[in-house]
Amino acid sequence: MELLDGKWLSQEIKKDIAAEVKKIIAQGGKQPHLAAVLVGDDPASQVYVRNKVKACELVGFKSTLIRREATISEQELMQIVHDLNQDDDVDGFIVQLPLPKHIDEIKVTLAIDPKKDVDGFHPMNVGRMTIGLPAYLPATPFGIMQMLERYKIDVAGKECVVLGRSNIVGTPISLLLSRKANPGNATVILCHSMTQNIKDLCRRADVLVVAMGRPKFVTEDMVKAGAVIIDVGINRIDDPTAAKGTRLVGDVDFEMVAPKCSYITPVPGGVGPMTITSLLMNTLRANRKEIYG
Amino acid sequence: MELLDGKWLSQEIKKDIAAEVKKIIAQGGKQPHLAAVLVGDDPASQVYVRNKVKACELVGFKSTLIRREATISEQELMQIVHDLNQDDDVDGFIVQLPLPKHIDEIKVTLAIDPKKDVDGFHPMNVGRMTIGLPAYLPATPFGIMQMLERYKIDVAGKECVVLGRSNIVGTPISLLLSRKANPGNATVILCHSMTQNIKDLCRRADVLVVAMGRPKFVTEDMVKAGAVIIDVGINRIDDPTAAKGTRLVGDVDFEMVAPKCSYITPVPGGVGPMTITSLLMNTLRANRKEIYG
Repeated sequence: MELLDGKWLSQEIKKDIAAEVKKIIAQGGKQPHLAAVLVGDDPASQVYVRNKVKACELVGFKSTLIRREATISEQELMQIVHDLNQDDDVDGFIVQLPLPKHIDEIKVTLAIDPKKDVDGFHPMNVGRMTIGLPAYLPATPFGIMQMLERYKIDVAGKECVVLGRSNIVGTPISLLLSRKANPGNATVILCHSMTQNIKDLCRRADVLVVAMGRPKFVTEDMVKAGAVIIDVGINRIDDPTAAKGTRLVGDVDFEMVAPKCSYITPVPGGVGPMTITSLLMNTLRANRKEIYG
Repeated sequence: MELLDGKWLSQEIKKDIAAEVKKIIAQGGKQPHLAAVLVGDDPASQVYVRNKVKACELVGFKSTLIRREATISEQELMQIVHDLNQDDDVDGFIVQLPLPKHIDEIKVTLAIDPKKDVDGFHPMNVGRMTIGLPAYLPATPFGIMQMLERYKIDVAGKECVVLGRSNIVGTPISLLLSRKANPGNATVILCHSMTQNIKDLCRRADVLVVAMGRPKFVTEDMVKAGAVIIDVGINRIDDPTAAKGTRLVGDVDFEMVAPKCSYITPVPGGVGPMTITSLLMNTLRANRKEIYG
């Protein structure tokens, strides 16, 4: 069993990106610039955005953080999005979700210029990804694909079972795994809450991607010997033995499952750290105008 | 075994659409108007476009056929697309594919205003479909979903195996079958040319959608008793006993497979006729501004 070490790999990728940024600037190019809009004071969102800004600094990007109270009107937020669309210095930007209930998230997402949508949530980017055109890929699936590529895990012709059909993880990773590309060309089985025989299907999986948000859902009896396990879950559970009284676990029972696998992502330190490098890579692509010219 | 009679069903749907059109016009609304652009003289394309125009007339739509020689420049074709985008009387339009080799099909597809893209091929519509927003659905998957709905075939929690991952059939039908909707909520297995154990997977299928373009690929031993079979293939094969010396067959060996099924689409007369009704339904939606307001 080998660990898919997202912490290490994300640092490697960040080193590569930092070297690229130096090269761009040395050649007289524009410094990549990511802007992030944070509305309200959700603690998790604050951590995510802070980590994104920190990662930008680390690789030499310019970053702008726009913070607004949870009471901001939808119209005011739409104006911020509009201004960022127009700002030539900003290569890409994100509006951290979730937004307060009085703001229509879909309306805001649709207002972002697809050319600057480095979260890859705009339907234009989702559609381009679906039909195989260059696109900003959503962070988590992009991170997983990076991991498969860098660890040289060949999924072509393999059975990949994906648990969860969300717009930001399950559905896009199922599309990326099945498309005619490398990595790709897998036979994908997309499972969700309505799937009847989920254990049986999991046991078929050469590659199992789990994104359900249910702590330790995948147990040892659900995994084929030698399988590759990608655990996207991040769940906080009670643990009296831990200093804080809680700890983070994935959707996979790591202790029991790991010995059966060929590769497995730990939680934390697996898929999580890769999501920020995806955002950085998308921003670099935006800076280079790789997707939309 | 019951036939999924696309010929009959498409006529029923056309009657419904015709009644809607009468109502719209009686209420002083605008007559739905579909335009089609046909470039060159590919015989199959001519038949398709002729049938689309005929169907428009049948349901009371206005239709415009724009024919151009295969020698048209890309720029001239782009100007036609631009003019149709601007023409307020045209609710929706299609550019019949394939286009001559010197014209970039993707560039032309991207130039169509998503609001008028009644073929549902523009990434904006593909992306909206993928994330579950209202969208123009591509004709064949939309036709299949209509068929499942009207025949009250419940696919929720069922295993649906899709053979073929094309942008116009396999991939979108796999998305529609798996999404949280009715019909939908199926567990989808998307197979393609790189799939290793296709026979084994087919035998699992409660619903089998075949879109490979390989005559009689699916044989009786690949089908579970009681399965629902949707055959998207249309292949012309030699048949010395037929008047023309050839006949149309699907991707499924109908004679052998039909007795094992609960439902099956014939070829011809199954999925084929449904694709035109999909185009009409998309045009009606465009006329009502149901998708983009």
